[in-house]
Amino acid sequence: MIKFCNSCGAPASYRIPEGDSLPRAVCDACGHIQYENPKIVVGCVPIRGERILLCKRAIEPRYGLWTLPAGFMENAETAAEGAMREALEEANARVEIEELYTVFSVPHISQVHMMFRAKLLNDDFSAGTESLAVKLVTAEEIPWDELAFTVVRRTLQHYLEDRARGTFVPRFGDLRSPTR
Amino acid sequence: MIKFCNSCGAPASYRIPEGDSLPRAVCDACGHIQYENPKIVVGCVPIRGERILLCKRAIEPRYGLWTLPAGFMENAETAAEGAMREALEEANARVEIEELYTVFSVPHISQVHMMFRAKLLNDDFSAGTESLAVKLVTAEEIPWDELAFTVVRRTLQHYLEDRARGTFVPRFGDLRSPTR
Repeated sequence: MIKFCNSCGAPASYRIPEGDSLPRAVCDACGHIQYENPKIVVGCVPIRGERILLCKRAIEPRYGLWTLPAGFMENAETAAEGAMREALEEANARVEIEELYTVFSVPHISQVHMMFRAKLLNDDFSAGTESLAVKLVTAEEIPWDELAFTVVRRTLQHYLEDRARGTFVPRFGDLRSPTR
Repeated sequence: MIKFCNSCGAPASYRIPEGDSLPRAVCDACGHIQYENPKIVVGCVPIRGERILLCKRAIEPRYGLWTLPAGFMENAETAAEGAMREALEEANARVEIEELYTVFSVPHISQVHMMFRAKLLNDDFSAGTESLAVKLVTAEEIPWDELAFTVVRRTLQHYLEDRARGTFVPRFGDLRSPTR
């Protein structure tokens, strides 16, 4: 919850600005509005031959579980640039980003996840600071019971299905909270 | 630029937090970090028979030019829900959202635009508060020289190409600043 104006430092309170339809954090002094919007998570499925690069998380949430390299998109970059950057940060991995492959809205945490297919360019990769380990796995070696996120599981499932039938089709969907 | 902490109201300054790689607005007193990330714009191509619903903008930027209904995605909604909401707000139009159709990164303004194909459910639409006018146009009637945004032009071009060949294929890309 926002308590103060980040423009002038005076207290802010939640109310619906004129012409708007949702409560926003509005400065009681200068009127500045702080909008809060969904964040984008960008990542990729790095492929090397038949194998897929996975990272074991060294941070919360889901410490110790396996994931695809992904993270928050930054200002001034494209989604593909962000996905490439995350592969480098989390796995010291150089990837060539191919097509956008899965897009999932995750409304209960106000996120949209965008995962690309990607080519891992060489075997020179290693755990970045946010990873305990990184490894290339075959389809049979994917640790399905130790995956960190539903987005990762769904993306890997789609990837393997599409690879088996020889054609890749982008997928879009929503992931609701399991408790909903 | 962020000048104050929105958690405690003390001055904030831009520096690279430990373990991070980019400057963030960090509170000088309590250490709270305000992250700034790209925003998502969601919208749709509302189709009714052979015609497409366009809106004439009543707000800046691009006042008076034509656009597809679209706007900033809100917290706690899915991208499709946001696209449906925007059609209702800008054109009082009830739409059924179909597939995600175009996704464009626009890095110079730190935005990602996601446009869906959609079915306009009836002819009961009218200008919302952010529109001067709304109308259904045939392909021949699209005001190409009076479109508000490149995303809109590209999405309409793809739509007409795909419709002509009878199959719709999602498109992903980047739109760089024309001055870059």
